[in-house]
Order: sequence, then C-alpha cells, then structure tokens
Amino acid sequence: MLILASQSPRRQALLKAMDLDFQVMVKSVDETFPKDIPVEKTAEYLAEKKADAFHFSELPKNAILITCDTTVIVDNQILGKAETPDEAVIMLKKLSGRKHAVITGVCIKTATEKKLFSETTFVHFKHLTDEQIQYYVGTYKPFDKAGAYGIQEWIGMIGISRIEGCYYNVMGLPTARLAEMLNV
Amino acid sequence: MLILASQSPRRQALLKAMDLDFQVMVKSVDETFPKDIPVEKTAEYLAEKKADAFHFSELPKNAILITCDTTVIVDNQILGKAETPDEAVIMLKKLSGRKHAVITGVCIKTATEKKLFSETTFVHFKHLTDEQIQYYVGTYKPFDKAGAYGIQEWIGMIGISRIEGCYYNVMGLPTARLAEMLNV
Repeated sequence: MLILASQSPRRQALLKAMDLDFQVMVKSVDETFPKDIPVEKTAEYLAEKKADAFHFSELPKNAILITCDTTVIVDNQILGKAETPDEAVIMLKKLSGRKHAVITGVCIKTATEKKLFSETTFVHFKHLTDEQIQYYVGTYKPFDKAGAYGIQEWIGMIGISRIEGCYYNVMGLPTARLAEMLNV
Repeated sequence: MLILASQSPRRQALLKAMDLDFQVMVKSVDETFPKDIPVEKTAEYLAEKKADAFHFSELPKNAILITCDTTVIVDNQILGKAETPDEAVIMLKKLSGRKHAVITGVCIKTATEKKLFSETTFVHFKHLTDEQIQYYVGTYKPFDKAGAYGIQEWIGMIGISRIEGCYYNVMGLPTARLAEMLNV
C-alpha cells in the first residue's frame, strides 16, 4: 500500500503515470530548516521531516510512505514559492539567461526502514524578456511552484533551452530513481 | 496564420501549450530519403520534403507553414516506427542501458522564405528488463512513435534516467528553438 504525502497535482499525476496504485495523505508540516544545512541537502532534510510527521500507527498495514521536497537553487541560494506577482517576476529575472539546479529529496518510509535520496537536474533558461516574464506570471500565476515556474507550462516550452538530468525531477518527482527504489 | 503540417497529437498539444493559434493541414508525403544523406541530416531533409509538398497557392494568405520530422539514432542508424510488437521489443532492447540521440528537423516556410534547422537531445535509458519492455509494448502499443517509445509515457517515467538537451524535442517539437524562430 503506497501512500503519497503530497498535495502537488504534478506529483500525483506522475505517480499515476508510473501505473502505481496509491493513496494521498497529507499532513501540514512546518517547512523551516536550520540555517546551517548545506543548500543542496535541504530537500532531503525536508522530505525526511515530512515523513517523520507520520506515526506508523496512523497508516494502513504494510504502508510505504513517500514524501518529497523540491528546491530550486541559484547562486547557492534556495528560491521558494513566490507569494506575489512581484516576487515571481524577481525570481524569474534571477533565473533568466543562466543555469540553475533543481533538487528533489525523497523519503521512502516503511514500518521498519527509511530510505532517503535526492536527485539533481540542471535547467538552462534562455534570456527571458520582461514581456515574456510579465505574460507568464499574469497568465499562469505560478505561486504554488518553487522558483515561480513550471517546466511543463508555457515558460518551460518557450524559455528552457536544455536540461541535464531527469525531466520529471524538475516537475517534483525523480520517477526513474523512485522506480528503482520501489522495484517497479 | 500558422499552419502545422503534422498529424502527431504530441506536436499539436505542444504548439497549443506555446499559446499559439494554428491550423493543422496534412499532406501524405513519401518519407523515403536518399541513402547517402548523413543520418543526422535526415530529419531536416524530411522536414523540407514535407514543406515542399505544399504549394503556396493552396495556403491561406500570409501563411507560415511548419513541418517536422523526428529521428531516433543509435549506432549511426535510424530507428523508425515499429510495425509489430516484436519490432518494438527489438528497438527497445537496442535502446536499453545506453544513450541515443533524438533529432527533430523543422522547416518554417512562408511565401518568400524557407528556414531549416534541427535540434538534438541525448536520451539515456537505464537497463530495461524483458518484463518492463513486454509490459510497455503490450500496454502502450507504441507503434506511432519513432524508436517505439514516448518519453511522456510509462517507459519514459521509469526507464529514462537523464536527458541532455530539450525535453520537448524528444516529444517531436523543439519548442524553445521554434519560439525563437517565430519571435514568440
């Protein structure tokens, strides 16, 4: 019995596209993290924190719990979710014309063990014009996404020239690594 | 007035996701090519051949015609579309556990000019088990796709560990390059 602890419609769609049966159970978790964790370890830290919010007594028998966190990193700094259009514009200007890293941390937890891993994908944005950024933010309102963009949306089509790594990892779930861990 | 000359539902969906208005007009074209063309030039050759099948007198005024061809190349050899499950299995066994190239050639043709370009993406498959290949071919019947796989389907989720280049190019349309050419 697979349990995905994520409200992200992208993660749910990807796990479904892996032809897996699962239930969604979400707990609200305080997503703060200690300042002294290296930025590239933050996604794993938060995935584990989300897993530890569950007690196995609350889960179905033989449950396999999957928790995830996706971080967008540029200049050794994590870009979270934008709360306003202005914040989204500032983030996209920061990503424009250069490469950044997307790291998804995953925790797979059963009653007896806990596996933790992360996957990194590099994403190259072309130079984005102010007009393109304004159009995207105004039309797609990317406030539920780390770094204020979805690679599967308009901005990903017209603005991302190349990636190095797993595409689905950028959407929030490193599907090929996860398939290995789950023996799909 | 943009005209996409492709029956591929993936290309149509991608052009739509670029927020472009277009019509679909398809002509059947003989997709053979001279044996002495370098394999990496074949996609451009076929994209141009598809464009040249149209006479501008048949198209709306100010039409911009887009034609495409996608090739999957491994061992300096082009993998076309599989016609039977056995052929699909043979192709996927050839792609398993290694890197191959996907090249999409695009021709953009107006009444006065013709632009031709191609984009290459490298795709790395993990080692696929016979069971995974049989499941994919039996369930997804990938007979309409070069190389007998769709990166956006189950096999792409569980079997592709990384890509280098444009993801949408593997689906059949190099969206970021096309956006540049069309001044999106």
